[in-house]
Formats: sequence, structure tokens, C-alpha cells
Amino acid sequence: MNAIEYIESHRDANLAELVEFLKIPSISTKTEHKPDVERAARWVAEKLRGQFPSVEIVETAGHPLVYAESTQTPGKPTVLFYGHYDVQPSEPDHLWTTPAFEPAVRGGNLYGRGTADDKGQVHIHLAAFEALQKTQGKLPVNVKVIIEGEEEIGGASLYEFVRTQKEKLKSDVLVVSDTSMLAPGVPSVTYGLRGLNYYQIELTAAAQDLHSGVFGGAVPNPLTILSELFARMHDKNFRVTVPAFYKDVATLSRAERKALQALPWKLSQFKKTVGAPGLCGEKGYSVVEQIWCRPTLELNGMWGGYMGEGAKTVIPSKAWAKFSTRLVPNQKPEQIAKQVEKHIRKLLPKTVSCKFTVLSSGKPWVAPYTHPFFAAAHDALEKGFGRKAVFIREGGSIPFVTSMSDTFRIPCILMGFGLPDENAHAPDEHISLENYFGGIKAAAHFYQGLARA
Amino acid sequence: MNAIEYIESHRDANLAELVEFLKIPSISTKTEHKPDVERAARWVAEKLRGQFPSVEIVETAGHPLVYAESTQTPGKPTVLFYGHYDVQPSEPDHLWTTPAFEPAVRGGNLYGRGTADDKGQVHIHLAAFEALQKTQGKLPVNVKVIIEGEEEIGGASLYEFVRTQKEKLKSDVLVVSDTSMLAPGVPSVTYGLRGLNYYQIELTAAAQDLHSGVFGGAVPNPLTILSELFARMHDKNFRVTVPAFYKDVATLSRAERKALQALPWKLSQFKKTVGAPGLCGEKGYSVVEQIWCRPTLELNGMWGGYMGEGAKTVIPSKAWAKFSTRLVPNQKPEQIAKQVEKHIRKLLPKTVSCKFTVLSSGKPWVAPYTHPFFAAAHDALEKGFGRKAVFIREGGSIPFVTSMSDTFRIPCILMGFGLPDENAHAPDEHISLENYFGGIKAAAHFYQGLARA
Repeated sequence: MNAIEYIESHRDANLAELVEFLKIPSISTKTEHKPDVERAARWVAEKLRGQFPSVEIVETAGHPLVYAESTQTPGKPTVLFYGHYDVQPSEPDHLWTTPAFEPAVRGGNLYGRGTADDKGQVHIHLAAFEALQKTQGKLPVNVKVIIEGEEEIGGASLYEFVRTQKEKLKSDVLVVSDTSMLAPGVPSVTYGLRGLNYYQIELTAAAQDLHSGVFGGAVPNPLTILSELFARMHDKNFRVTVPAFYKDVATLSRAERKALQALPWKLSQFKKTVGAPGLCGEKGYSVVEQIWCRPTLELNGMWGGYMGEGAKTVIPSKAWAKFSTRLVPNQKPEQIAKQVEKHIRKLLPKTVSCKFTVLSSGKPWVAPYTHPFFAAAHDALEKGFGRKAVFIREGGSIPFVTSMSDTFRIPCILMGFGLPDENAHAPDEHISLENYFGGIKAAAHFYQGLARA
Repeated sequence: MNAIEYIESHRDANLAELVEFLKIPSISTKTEHKPDVERAARWVAEKLRGQFPSVEIVETAGHPLVYAESTQTPGKPTVLFYGHYDVQPSEPDHLWTTPAFEPAVRGGNLYGRGTADDKGQVHIHLAAFEALQKTQGKLPVNVKVIIEGEEEIGGASLYEFVRTQKEKLKSDVLVVSDTSMLAPGVPSVTYGLRGLNYYQIELTAAAQDLHSGVFGGAVPNPLTILSELFARMHDKNFRVTVPAFYKDVATLSRAERKALQALPWKLSQFKKTVGAPGLCGEKGYSVVEQIWCRPTLELNGMWGGYMGEGAKTVIPSKAWAKFSTRLVPNQKPEQIAKQVEKHIRKLLPKTVSCKFTVLSSGKPWVAPYTHPFFAAAHDALEKGFGRKAVFIREGGSIPFVTSMSDTFRIPCILMGFGLPDENAHAPDEHISLENYFGGIKAAAHFYQGLARA
């Protein structure tokens, strides 16, 4: 039995194992889920022990990361596979058709928090490793594995680990599956990602909540001021008004714009997925360019005052916003954060005080996809799926990719098995079972192909 | 022993009884507090049974109201006393020094939800009725009492009761204690109130929450749109931009502006109470005019997206706002509501849908304070407090006053015993014990004075 036959005969077993993994609510952003995060790390380590001679759970200042190594093929390339076992919060829970942490199959998809981002995609590789090891006695290339638990909180622990373990992590290529395919039936290699700065601000006007009858008309309202602030963060062409925000943005080449234009990407499908009465983006760019190649400023949360049932006639003392900037090559996250804070402080009136916090910061990344390892990935995807594969960029952020690319100066291969409408970070997150099973085969082909590259 | 002596000798007993009343969390806006609301109604009815031959708990479509009658003094005026036993929610609870529903005395004040608005002020009259009845065998004038349970939700039940019981409620004067004194040591009769429309809007852009990496840059963000909307609701002079919003607003006479200017009202005290880095109001008007005589549009709550700990990179599907317009003579609430909705729908882009709801609506009110009953109130306050009394307006809303004024065309006397900095509707709501005890004496003087008026 070869690896692909093994994979075909283990469909039910693999799915059952993934469901077990998904049931652990490893929400890294919430302190109360710390034990679940640790349980997920132990689960991953246990699974890897079947194929890797060396597996360790690395304790960190934050959540643990799992590191494994198999270096039984001298002379062959060394692959570093990266994934994360932590997930986003599940709220709003009432919008899930089935509970976030009780995975369920419906209409050819597996639903549950982490199915697409990123437990399902991590498990694709875990299953491929098992198939290769069980059928060939060992992995066809040298493999180092890092599965971290702080991806969704831009965690610092991984960087610390990389910084102190440079020698140990030395590899020829980084492989990540935490992105999406362009569309169903279009397996994709991603060569560009946006960076991300995530911010929170707290405005304080009056020293306490005030009665809107007794005080209304003469006192500053932090909700109004927050509204006025964010109304001024975009101009009428939907460009971000932060000074010098676009200064370092790399211009898209005519060739790349043409290649992006030629992709089998459908605006009608995008519109259907979004389901809004209309779209809204920066003038002068196609939607694909807007979401992959252009920077943004986005409100992720906003709140203040009375949010319960009925009416409360209050002028709140405080108002909050969480927001983020997606960054593209060659914007510098630290510089952008400074500019954003400066701009906000300049726009705010003197009637409020403002607490400004940068919650996380990550660089953008783009790679020339000319290396033979890229060809191996492209080839493996076409074999695993029996479909034509494409090269794409993506709008999300995987700060680790940039960091590894900067640190080791090695090619980074992003093979994503998600789909854009799979509700990562939202209710009813899911993964297509066709992509999950195709992904396992493609991953097995890829590791075998690298041995020949 | 006369009524005033009786009041002096019952300070502790009165305070203990008020504390008992305040402990009932009769939050009318929250469904889960329905049993507490009903308990508060029974408590009021029980208390009134000591002095009133006829007391009933009137069941309504919403919360019950308590009605009592004592008509033992033919030929004397009939007073209708109105108050409410329902209170605002207590959130944010962590900002209370002592729990909202565990009343506590600190620094000459009684703290707890409802102390100022309105249980404390209702109890002032209940204690005065008791003193008069115990020392004189009956009340000095005919008294009808309505204590309702829907004031904080602009409840319709009271209006229905008035509409159907017009004959029964017929009176010569309405008395309400649900307002504030101008300042400590300045007993006040209020002759004007603002009206209130309270609205809620729900904006929907995408059909579900979206990942801000995968979709950010091309899809409408309802939080940004909500911000842009409310940024456009005021102009640079802080005037409301709703067309014709000011059309019916009565111009302030030079005489009234002068009288308002002459009041012992201190801007420094107001600023200290507010505690904000600055004030903010409509250009061309004094602060007193802004809060008493000018209409406003105020955000009372706003929310959407991720509001938990840490970061979630989401573009929310929906965003919400609760807001209200304070109205002044002669604005028409229904017409204003229509104009506000029309203006909002016009300002919103086509990328969102909007659900617009009017949660409540109440008319403004102003009275010429020339009637002898006003003089009786003024006189009673000076006697009860041993201080000079003043005539003032107030920025809050008591829809019932307008309704009664419209229905029965009788003078309405608003004798408030609160203070502007007593945090009605906010954490650490309190009432000054000096005003509470002075209020009981003033109320007793007032009912006796009416017998001579």
C-alpha cells in the first residue's frame, strides 16, 4: 500500500481524529480557556509521537508550543512545517447552526470553530505524515514541526522560541497551511500576505455616566466623538487618512495586475459570499487588489453606553473601539502604529482623554514564486486534487511567515486548503471535506516531491 | 404634636422604611425583574393603606400602577400626586462603591439605585401623608395618588389609565417630585421640562461576520458606517442636522434669559460634577439654556463587533445604536421622529440596510408659574428648608406631566428634592439626607398650604 492508498483507506479514521481535535475549545485570547489551550497542545504532541522520534511541548511565557523533529534522511531537504492549534472565540454563539465546539458534517462540509483556521489544515499534514511513515517506514524528507498556541493573539512566544533556537530550526523551506484556495476546485499556492497591527482605544469624557436629560446639550459624548473620529479615518475614495500611510506601499507591477486579473476569481461569487447590499473599497483598484494588495483600516469592535434591552437615557463616560490596519509590502508596522496614534490624538477634541494600545503587530510578506520548491508545491496540489493549481496572494496575516522569511531567508510555501466563504473567525466556520481529503493527498505528494526537488 | 414635630421625631423610622423600599430592584426595562417590579407596587400600596381609605393595585398591559384616594375634605382643593416606583438598570455594577440595591449612608447622603430617581422622592410624600394623617386624623386636602412602574420605559399603561379614568382622576393641581433642586440649599419649583424621543437603529451590511484579512478592503463595515452617520448628525456649531429640527422651537424671551442668568447656578460646580476635560454644546446659548431650553440629539449606547478581551479580526455583519432627542416647546415628538428617520435613511449609504425603531416618545412642557398654587409650593419650600426658593426649568423628561397638563388643563407643580450631581441613571446614585428630611417637611407644609390657597 502506498501513502495515497493509505490515505484513501483512512478517510473515516482521519475525520474522527480531526473531530476529537476540534472539540477542544483552545481559545487563546480568553484567560479562562488556558486549560483547554494546554490540552490541545498535549493532543498535538501525542499525535506527532507516532511519526517523529523527537517531540516536545515547549513551555513559554504564554501558551505552550509543540515542536517535533524527524531527521532520518540525510542529504534530503529539511522542511519546517508550521501551524497553530489555537482558535478564535466562538461568539456570537447563537448564530451557529450547531455549537462551535461540537463539530458536525452538513452538505459535504465539516462545521466547527477551527475547521478551516487552522486545526483542520494542521491535521491535513498530521494525517499525511502518518500515511508516509506507516507506508514507507519514515518520512521522505527531514521534517521539523512547530504547532503554536498564540497565532490568534499575535503571540510573542513563538518569536522568542525562533530567536533562541535558530540553529535547531535551520531548514530549507517553510510550509504553512493556514490560507485559502482561490475557489472550490482551484488549489492554490499563496505568495503574498498582508501584515496586521491591532489597536484598542478608550475615550473618557465625563468622570461618570450622566443623565442625558439633566446634562444633555452641554457635555461631551464619547460615543459621538468616537463616531466623528472614525468618520474621519477614510476619505471619500475610501483611502485611509493617516498621513504617510501609503508612503511605503509597493506599487503593483503591470505584470502582476494582469496575472491577478487572469485568475479564475469570480466577483459574483465574492458578492454572494459577503451578502451585503453592496461593496465598498479603495477607488482605483479591483476587488482582488483591494483585499490582497492594498492596506486597510478596519473597525473590529466598538462599544459604550447602554447596550441592554429597552432604553436608558445615559451619556456614557467612556467609549471603546478595537480596530486594525492590514499592511502590505513595504509598510513598516511600528512606524504605521506611531502614525495612527499621532493622527488619532490630533483628530480628537480636547473634551476627551484617550488611552491608545497596540495589541499586536505583524509585518506583510511577499515572495517571488520562482524557486523549485514552489514548483513542487504546485505539482503536488495538481496531483492531490486532479485540478489545475494557481499562484495567489491573500489578505490575511501570518506574522510567523514574515519572521521566518526574515530570519532564515528561505522560501515559504503557503498551501491553503480553506475557502474564502468558510467563515473563519465567524459563526458556522467550516471546511470542505473534498479539500480536507484532497489536502492530505496533496501534502503527501508534496513531501515526496521535495525529496526529488 | 403637629405634623412637623412628628416628622422630626420619625427621622430614623422614615429612613429605615425608605431603605426597605430601595432594596427592591424594580428595574422596569428588564423582563427578568418583572417580579421585583410587582413587589415594589405591593410595597407602595401597603404603605398607602395607612393614610388612604381607598388603595388599589391597577393591573395593566405592562407593569401595575398603584392608585389611592382620600377625599375627606369637601370644599378643599384636590391634589393629584404622581411618582414612580420603577428604576433604571444598575449597570455598570462594578462602578458602584456599594451595591445598587443595598442602600448605604455615606457623608450625609443615602446611596442606592432609586434614591434620587424616584423612590426617595416618592417616599418624601408618603412620609408627609403619614405625618399629616397621624397628627390631624386626616389629610388637609383631598389627595389622589398615582405611583406608576413604567416611567423609565416611557410606559403606555399610565396613559391608558388616565384615558379611561378621566372622571376619577379629576383634580385641581398635579404635584410631582421627580426633579432636582438647582443646587444644595436652593429649594426649587420646576416650570419647564424637555420631551424625549428614544430611538434604536440596527445596521446590517454583510450577511455574517467576515474575516478582516480575507475580506477587509472591499466590504462595507457597519461600524464605520454608523460612525459616519453619527458624525453627520451635528454640525460644527453642535446643532442637530436633521432638517427642520429647530423649526418649531419656541424662542426664549429676553426676560426669561435674564431670569435664568440671575439664578444662583454655578458653572464651576457644573464642570466639577461633569468631570470631563471640557464642555461641548450648541453655540450661542449659555450652559443653562443648553441643558434646559434647547433640543439635543444624544447617543446613549452603541455597539457591534468584538467587545471581549484581546483581539478578534472580524468585520461585523451588524452594528447598533441607541440614541435620543430631547425636545423643547413647541417641538412635536411624532414629527421629529419622522424627520430623524428620514434624515438617517438619506445619510446612510446603499451598502447597508437599516432597521429604525422609536422606543418611546414624550412631549416637552412649560408652564407660566403665576397660579396661586405655585406660590404655595414656593412658600412651603422656604418653610421646609428655611432657605430662599427659586423657579427653574429642567432638561429631563416627565411625559406624564405633559399628558396631564394637556388632558386636565390644570397647573403642574414640580417640587424636586434631588441634586444635579446625584448620578440618577448612573452608578453611585444618591440623595442628600438634608434634602430628604427637608423635603418631607416642605411636602407637609405644601399640603397644609394648599388647604388655605
